[in-house]
Amino acid sequence: MTGVLDAPAASGAGLQMQELIGELYPICRSITGQGVRDSLRLLQKHIPLEIRSVPSGTQVLDWVVPREWNIRGAYVKDPAGRRIVDFADSNLHVVSYSAPVRRRMPLAELREHLFSLPEHPDWIPYRTSYYREDWGFSVTHRLLEGMEDGEYEVCIDSTLEPGQLNFGELRLQGRTDEEVLLSCHCCHPSLCNDNLSGMALCTFLAKELLGTETRYSYRFLFLPGTIGSITWLALNEARARNIKHGLVAACVGDAGGFRYKRSRQGNAEIDRAAAHVLKHRDTGHEIVDFSPYGYDERQYCSPGFNLAVGSLTRSGHGQYPEYHTSADNLGLVRPGALEESLSVYREILGVIEGNCRYRNTQPKGEPQLGRRGLYGSVGGWAALGLNEAAMLWVLNLSDGEWSLLDIAERAGLRFESVRAAAEALEQHSLLERI
Amino acid sequence: MTGVLDAPAASGAGLQMQELIGELYPICRSITGQGVRDSLRLLQKHIPLEIRSVPSGTQVLDWVVPREWNIRGAYVKDPAGRRIVDFADSNLHVVSYSAPVRRRMPLAELREHLFSLPEHPDWIPYRTSYYREDWGFSVTHRLLEGMEDGEYEVCIDSTLEPGQLNFGELRLQGRTDEEVLLSCHCCHPSLCNDNLSGMALCTFLAKELLGTETRYSYRFLFLPGTIGSITWLALNEARARNIKHGLVAACVGDAGGFRYKRSRQGNAEIDRAAAHVLKHRDTGHEIVDFSPYGYDERQYCSPGFNLAVGSLTRSGHGQYPEYHTSADNLGLVRPGALEESLSVYREILGVIEGNCRYRNTQPKGEPQLGRRGLYGSVGGWAALGLNEAAMLWVLNLSDGEWSLLDIAERAGLRFESVRAAAEALEQHSLLERI
Amino acid sequence: MTGVLDAPAASGAGLQMQELIGELYPICRSITGQGVRDSLRLLQKHIPLEIRSVPSGTQVLDWVVPREWNIRGAYVKDPAGRRIVDFADSNLHVVSYSAPVRRRMPLAELREHLFSLPEHPDWIPYRTSYYREDWGFSVTHRLLEGMEDGEYEVCIDSTLEPGQLNFGELRLQGRTDEEVLLSCHCCHPSLCNDNLSGMALCTFLAKELLGTETRYSYRFLFLPGTIGSITWLALNEARARNIKHGLVAACVGDAGGFRYKRSRQGNAEIDRAAAHVLKHRDTGHEIVDFSPYGYDERQYCSPGFNLAVGSLTRSGHGQYPEYHTSADNLGLVRPGALEESLSVYREILGVIEGNCRYRNTQPKGEPQLGRRGLYGSVGGWAALGLNEAAMLWVLNLSDGEWSLLDIAERAGLRFESVRAAAEALEQHSLLERI
Repeated sequence: MTGVLDAPAASGAGLQMQELIGELYPICRSITGQGVRDSLRLLQKHIPLEIRSVPSGTQVLDWVVPREWNIRGAYVKDPAGRRIVDFADSNLHVVSYSAPVRRRMPLAELREHLFSLPEHPDWIPYRTSYYREDWGFSVTHRLLEGMEDGEYEVCIDSTLEPGQLNFGELRLQGRTDEEVLLSCHCCHPSLCNDNLSGMALCTFLAKELLGTETRYSYRFLFLPGTIGSITWLALNEARARNIKHGLVAACVGDAGGFRYKRSRQGNAEIDRAAAHVLKHRDTGHEIVDFSPYGYDERQYCSPGFNLAVGSLTRSGHGQYPEYHTSADNLGLVRPGALEESLSVYREILGVIEGNCRYRNTQPKGEPQLGRRGLYGSVGGWAALGLNEAAMLWVLNLSDGEWSLLDIAERAGLRFESVRAAAEALEQHSLLERI
Repeated sequence: MTGVLDAPAASGAGLQMQELIGELYPICRSITGQGVRDSLRLLQKHIPLEIRSVPSGTQVLDWVVPREWNIRGAYVKDPAGRRIVDFADSNLHVVSYSAPVRRRMPLAELREHLFSLPEHPDWIPYRTSYYREDWGFSVTHRLLEGMEDGEYEVCIDSTLEPGQLNFGELRLQGRTDEEVLLSCHCCHPSLCNDNLSGMALCTFLAKELLGTETRYSYRFLFLPGTIGSITWLALNEARARNIKHGLVAACVGDAGGFRYKRSRQGNAEIDRAAAHVLKHRDTGHEIVDFSPYGYDERQYCSPGFNLAVGSLTRSGHGQYPEYHTSADNLGLVRPGALEESLSVYREILGVIEGNCRYRNTQPKGEPQLGRRGLYGSVGGWAALGLNEAAMLWVLNLSDGEWSLLDIAERAGLRFESVRAAAEALEQHSLLERI
Repeated sequence: MTGVLDAPAASGAGLQMQELIGELYPICRSITGQGVRDSLRLLQKHIPLEIRSVPSGTQVLDWVVPREWNIRGAYVKDPAGRRIVDFADSNLHVVSYSAPVRRRMPLAELREHLFSLPEHPDWIPYRTSYYREDWGFSVTHRLLEGMEDGEYEVCIDSTLEPGQLNFGELRLQGRTDEEVLLSCHCCHPSLCNDNLSGMALCTFLAKELLGTETRYSYRFLFLPGTIGSITWLALNEARARNIKHGLVAACVGDAGGFRYKRSRQGNAEIDRAAAHVLKHRDTGHEIVDFSPYGYDERQYCSPGFNLAVGSLTRSGHGQYPEYHTSADNLGLVRPGALEESLSVYREILGVIEGNCRYRNTQPKGEPQLGRRGLYGSVGGWAALGLNEAAMLWVLNLSDGEWSLLDIAERAGLRFESVRAAAEALEQHSLLERI
């Protein structure tokens, strides 16, 4: 994997991700339906993604795959016959998964189906009603407040019929069958940071790994939230045991600092690798404990699986004002932020790929580094530079108990320095890999 | 136990405890003698306490039950024949367990038997001489300083004779034989906070538990300090092994914040329950490590027993200026403080009663709560309220390793929310008790 | 060991150490050569040190014993023929282990062999070239800057020939064969704090222990840095396993606070003893984690040995401006500092010697101390003084799990108080030693 994971971010990757987000933005996605398929097909222009289909009605763990939802259009006409709400203007206007409706009704009745954000009167909220059949419109609070009494006409031209649940899957075989999972949700309509940014990041990370030799196999999943990961887990119980490390990618395009949410295990290697990488970067960041809210880590970390899957976001789940509103738009995600996020993911995977244990072949006393050209002889110990410190730490702690990441943490050194030192020492037969 | 331990404090319990303290206040108690018996009989008006008697001379562990001490009166007369100290004014005037004396002596000799508090010249100190035969008077420093040379007459009309050591015991059978111990010392004369307050609290806690169905059996002990708990332990070595949790109640009536002293084990369930309850209350509090000074936890936590017994006080052992002086009087204990103390004890017992482990019956992925009416479908995860958070946490952590208290602590939720969530989930067969 | 380790510092020990340092100061030491032998012979006036010899060329672990280096004189003459640098003025002027040279050369060529300290223009740096054959002069920066172009004459009248590596060793047999190691490096030329101070401290500590009955056997090593400890370990692999505790003594004469560097194990008994002693002294101090730089603890703590050896210094390795310069001279070390260092070492050894586990013979309840004259009866628990606290703690925790040091740490008491309490309780048969 060296050479790809260690390389600086491909020039312009941020702009390319931003462009992909722009193409995905207009599509109306939900947990099922044509929008998901169209989105996954767009990704196939970049990576050889397989699009899976699971029929409605399939039992998946405690759940059942729901009907497929599709929508052609929707509107609300005021008493004067003017279209005051139109799905064509924003797919957020329709509560996702709304049942079809075509009726006239007084304002009082309609208002029970209208949702707005009083604190942000110009934004449209994102609402869903997946598991209780209903319908509704999300509107700006400004519009809502101006609506006058009278008879309104509402139309949602949608279908809820037996069909398919779709998700995208890409597996890259590494030297071992042990897997690293990268998972993102692909079910949100026109919302950019949450989660077109995660979809773009996973796509470009997969693109970089394609054809690269890696230690681990990599599995990328683009899934409708909750039901998608539950479906994948139901169909892949045995395969799930191969997942040794995982990250759920979401909200990686905004300008906020990084936020890593630990796996349920709490001190898994992925948790330590992510914390290590973030600590050694200059950017502000936050490490938070696992909690059973958030994204699909909820399912991967359910007690029957308990996988070592964390989640790395910028301003994450519910943590920024534009979250789940029309203001989570193309202006919120920034190429530089996307590119930096990609770089952090890449560096974390680099730690996971490179982390291993060595045994010092000369464990009694220090080996004579100078004789092997690994130590400047004039100047003595005081002239000790960073790499020599890394070499001394690796030699001292390579008793079979300490991994390179353990050593980096105890020494307060960056993983990459420690890994490079270990490689130099291995070349001189002072270390052997366990 | 639900219904009693969960109930709000019985209205007026604080006033009733205050009233009981007022009845007990005038009695001259010591580690043996009529005062202890009279006090225990007063408690029998509230609870079916059994009064145990152990003869003087009985070997109890490393100790011997001492003689019974009784006193009819005592005084000091000055050279002019005026009674300047009189036991009738305050039973603190006589050093507890003083041998009888009736003599005339010069001031210089008398002064070796007089005790006062220079820093509080109007208070009478509480002194004892249990295990070395002696006699003495405690007086105000103001009096002491005004005493002039001359011949004084001293009289202590006491007896030290073979008799009984008494203590009160009440055991309430629960669904299991595992016991919760509530212990208080009953040997102090006219001192209110230390420890008529603890006696009143134990009495009213027992009164609430009477006839209630509980998981644990409850044992209440009203004992003379040190020798009483040693006597009980000597007579009940086998029974002591049934004690799974315990609290020593003392100094629970003053206006100070709570102070919980951990058991010797340090992280026993009772220690964690007490810390949890105090943390979630608004009142200031302090948690201190076990130390081998204090009250009868010293004996329960001796290495040969090492019981999980902590001590919950307000201003505790030696921590307030009125401690062991005549200023620890009826004005120091307050009905509101007593009632709040009772409520905290009740809530801690509620945690102990309700704490258990469950196993999630649908551990793979999250179960679909909406289908079971346990989740509001419109609004999505963002509308997640407290109880749903508790449900998700309980489901996620109920793998058999985590108790409800563990879950409450990790989730940062109040135990009661977590317990209620667990009950709801158990009713829907999503949890089964281990 | 009581009586020596517990005694106050022998009066004048600081002055005597200072005097010894003054005798050692002029000698030109290096890792091999006559200077080491002369120095060790000076120490033999105080303690029966054995001087070991290991021939050049001997394989010792990953290293080979180097040739013996000796030097008679050295100088640099300027173009005018003036001796501007002379070994007779300071043995720091010659880079230690310099190969012989006698040549004329232009300034430009000479400058590649000159070392100075621009930030301290009047100090001469200490430089070595042990493992790459080279030569050089250390000079003041002031001199260097005044040197004019022209032809210089350089002479180093040294030899590098097969010979001996020498070190000093003294073993004092205790009641057991388990050993405490005291190690110091003896290879530095005219540098006082680093490490004539360590040599003096080890000498006087050994002197105190001579003829004293101790629990542990004591091994004192005076070794050339790195190669010396590697040589000793190579020749004594089996004996090294007897070393249960150890300290590397260096830089113990300056005015700085103490600095204890933990062993690689990190929480060994010696680490806890040192931290305990330093915490209870008023002097400021610092505890730092093990790192694989510093002195011979690097070798003792290499993974193949992993001995419980820490290092106690004042301003330690690289931590003071005069470090490895001519300013580390007789003025930097102070008799009071040396004496205090000796006292701290002595107190740490006292903890190691006295630390053991007891079992309470009356573990059920507290034993009645008053009956045994171990508790004042009038005054009650409030009059509890320090020693009685120590007694209660020792009784409470002596269940076989807790050592006296564990007890002292938990109780917040000084080890010596706890040990004294344990001895008193043992005399009354309330404790038995495990």
